[in-house]
Amino acid sequence: MFESAELGHKIDKKTYDKEAPKLRADLLDAQFDVGELKKFPVIILINGVDGAGKGETVNLLNAWMDPRHIQTHAFPPPSDEERERPFMWRFWRALPPRGKIGILFGNWYTDPIVNRVIKVTKAADLDQSIEEINRFEQMLADEGALILKFWFHLSKDAQRKRLKALEKDKDTRWRVTKADWEHFAIYDKFRAVSEHALRHTSTGVAPWIVVEGADEQYRSLTVAKILLDAMRKRVDQEKKGARRVAVSAPPPPPAADRRDLINSLDMKLALTKKKFDKELEKYQGRLNLLTRNPKFKERSLICVFEGSDAAGKGGSIRRITGALDARQYAIVPIAAPTEEERAQPYLWRFWRHAPRIGRVTIFDRSWYGRVLVERVEGFAREEDWMRAYAEINDFEDQLVRSGAIVAKFWLAITAEEQLKRFKEREKTRFKRFKITEEDWRNRKKWNDYEHAVCDMIDRTSTEIAPWTLVEANDKLHARIKVLKTLCDRIESALRE
Amino acid sequence: MFESAELGHKIDKKTYDKEAPKLRADLLDAQFDVGELKKFPVIILINGVDGAGKGETVNLLNAWMDPRHIQTHAFPPPSDEERERPFMWRFWRALPPRGKIGILFGNWYTDPIVNRVIKVTKAADLDQSIEEINRFEQMLADEGALILKFWFHLSKDAQRKRLKALEKDKDTRWRVTKADWEHFAIYDKFRAVSEHALRHTSTGVAPWIVVEGADEQYRSLTVAKILLDAMRKRVDQEKKGARRVAVSAPPPPPAADRRDLINSLDMKLALTKKKFDKELEKYQGRLNLLTRNPKFKERSLICVFEGSDAAGKGGSIRRITGALDARQYAIVPIAAPTEEERAQPYLWRFWRHAPRIGRVTIFDRSWYGRVLVERVEGFAREEDWMRAYAEINDFEDQLVRSGAIVAKFWLAITAEEQLKRFKEREKTRFKRFKITEEDWRNRKKWNDYEHAVCDMIDRTSTEIAPWTLVEANDKLHARIKVLKTLCDRIESALRE
Repeated sequence: MFESAELGHKIDKKTYDKEAPKLRADLLDAQFDVGELKKFPVIILINGVDGAGKGETVNLLNAWMDPRHIQTHAFPPPSDEERERPFMWRFWRALPPRGKIGILFGNWYTDPIVNRVIKVTKAADLDQSIEEINRFEQMLADEGALILKFWFHLSKDAQRKRLKALEKDKDTRWRVTKADWEHFAIYDKFRAVSEHALRHTSTGVAPWIVVEGADEQYRSLTVAKILLDAMRKRVDQEKKGARRVAVSAPPPPPAADRRDLINSLDMKLALTKKKFDKELEKYQGRLNLLTRNPKFKERSLICVFEGSDAAGKGGSIRRITGALDARQYAIVPIAAPTEEERAQPYLWRFWRHAPRIGRVTIFDRSWYGRVLVERVEGFAREEDWMRAYAEINDFEDQLVRSGAIVAKFWLAITAEEQLKRFKEREKTRFKRFKITEEDWRNRKKWNDYEHAVCDMIDRTSTEIAPWTLVEANDKLHARIKVLKTLCDRIESALRE
Repeated sequence: MFESAELGHKIDKKTYDKEAPKLRADLLDAQFDVGELKKFPVIILINGVDGAGKGETVNLLNAWMDPRHIQTHAFPPPSDEERERPFMWRFWRALPPRGKIGILFGNWYTDPIVNRVIKVTKAADLDQSIEEINRFEQMLADEGALILKFWFHLSKDAQRKRLKALEKDKDTRWRVTKADWEHFAIYDKFRAVSEHALRHTSTGVAPWIVVEGADEQYRSLTVAKILLDAMRKRVDQEKKGARRVAVSAPPPPPAADRRDLINSLDMKLALTKKKFDKELEKYQGRLNLLTRNPKFKERSLICVFEGSDAAGKGGSIRRITGALDARQYAIVPIAAPTEEERAQPYLWRFWRHAPRIGRVTIFDRSWYGRVLVERVEGFAREEDWMRAYAEINDFEDQLVRSGAIVAKFWLAITAEEQLKRFKEREKTRFKRFKITEEDWRNRKKWNDYEHAVCDMIDRTSTEIAPWTLVEANDKLHARIKVLKTLCDRIESALRE
């Protein structure tokens, strides 16, 4: 991958001086169009070897375009708030919103490559990282991001010459540190690992662009032209309304015999009040102890509640929080996204609520809205919700690997039970229980929702983050099943 | 202040059982109304002595109301991201948006009181904190927040009895730690300092409510009733549209002789291109060195740019960023607030961008919009922008005391120069330079803006964060003056 970037590319000063001013003006214009359209973010990754002009290029892009609409992020050692969350959290945090340019200097490639070079990780770890990165970048592209990945390269020989030249001049000698020569000593290893990583992450939606870094003029014109071209093309596409072609397999139809996970549940399950009171005390006590276990301080807990309207999500959540210290948990009720959230990839608004270790976050509705309400109501296109299953699994995988315990509950009630609850609510004096037009509308699509729920469970009930189906026609049974399941999950997690 | 809370208040079980259910239902209803109105946030502060039921009360409020719309924040030792910003940053971060309830357990009172008790600070420090808190809470109230400050109290005797009782029972003995007796030993000191703090922070808009904590039933009913009453009253007021009365002094008129800071500037000041090039190199070099100075790593830099349309803010900013490493700075262009920002006090959207130490943040327009465009266009009511001057000074004072260097620039051009620039821009091929209808409209209010600018400078040019008036009819002169001023400010700050 690096051969073409070792040819000694050069641009003479005259050509540069001729081309640069026009390029700058065109870049500014293209940036303005990106900002005005607000249809997609531009994500620029800056990677490569030392001394190949990474920092200079970042400064150049800021100087040539309008820096007010560029967000540059370097990633020094993570803060404690970052360290206590999944690896990718800090990068999600740094994603530019639609209409802006984000330059990520050092990014999700840095640790996987460097750790492999210095043998902190194994080849298999690098390959796992590569797979994850590919899935992540595919998601970004599917969400509309324009991704440009620049790798700045210097041949071994050019690197040696550069360091020697710096050392020779008494004004620049201080710039060459011991670390520089140490890096040089592992040049071959770094090159081999990088080549492997680049080859396997050069995808159709986010290919690597390797730039020879030795000649500043060549480097600058090359990067600027590629960026300009990519922004221009994308702006034109968007203006023409040329949507990419849907590329998802058709969603599976409901089972031919209509037997499914939901209608196979035993909806008669119920508890007496007496039994409930006893069990409630028991499991709330257990849950309280578990969350005060010293081992829990190294984990976090994420509970997801989904269910039809009036299925009793709120009531179940309160039986959990009743066992916890209010300082420990946060409840995130999911409603329509805010404008800051709409300017980001779908999962961004859930990533921002990922808990630090030792904490509990309860989602009242969640990222599963994508494959439930958005699917059924047609708010998301088919190819978008079809890809969501895999994206969600990836998201939860990262949460779990960072130490989170993820417990997901589907509260199932029958259509008859829902009708009964709606009617009861219509009678109550409390406005907060009033049934809206929308609630009645949703009921009409009962079968569509049931189909969507079954697909969701089939595709996202994983070993690391399984769904629990809760027969919720009887509220008492439902609440205890939720609590018991939660206790069991935490207990087994803390035993690990 | 504590006498009434040492009377041994008690509520018997029967009364409690009778009153509690109705209170819960009413609280839920009031909470629902607050959430539906979305006009104001409810901020509940929980403070007081150990063992007086603070944690229990927080849990109770979460249990009695809908915990999905309550945000509870405890404040353990600050994270590094918090430590590297002003003291109040973590509290701003935790403020609930309009329509939500925020319970702040441990808050801006904790450190000032505790530090005084253990004599880390002096009496004068506490008094300074008190004054700042009063101004902060006044601002919250002016922004519409409903503030409830609960202080949970136990008499010394009750405290001793409580600890003894816990120690006597073998099941609870573990709960009494050495720290508890140590706290008890300084009970009198703690009481005296707290009393002083409470007395001086019990204001009309945010009085303290001291609750005797010994009897759980008394405590619970008391807090619940006060909260219910406060929410109800406020909801009713809002529904009636009863705005509080404007209480600001009238803004001063322009000087009788029309001489002011702006029209006294020498707008002929200019530089030749040759001189500019030389100076640019000199000051950019100096600025670059200054921001790489090891001492700068313990400071941060905040630049504020204000000026009429076409005054050259963007160009001046680019001459600064041209001297910096792009990884070090962030530029925050201020446009209309997002909905998340609109749900918070005015200054919230600027607080969220407060830089960590070692970093540079440049605001292209800023919090001064409140006293410029919002004043002139009537977007803010007179009493709101009149109080903004003091709020802004408080904000900048906190920034500076946390180590920030705050440099504010007003780029002044004459009406004639603006007209010339507008006309030039109309001819350009670049869409990004197009003049909008709004630009022409703003011009018509030139005198109003000039008056507002002079008031702003009079009221917010402080010793710690002075304004620099920049004669900007000549762009070259303006850019150099900005750079030079910035270098001087940083140099003198690093010498401190």
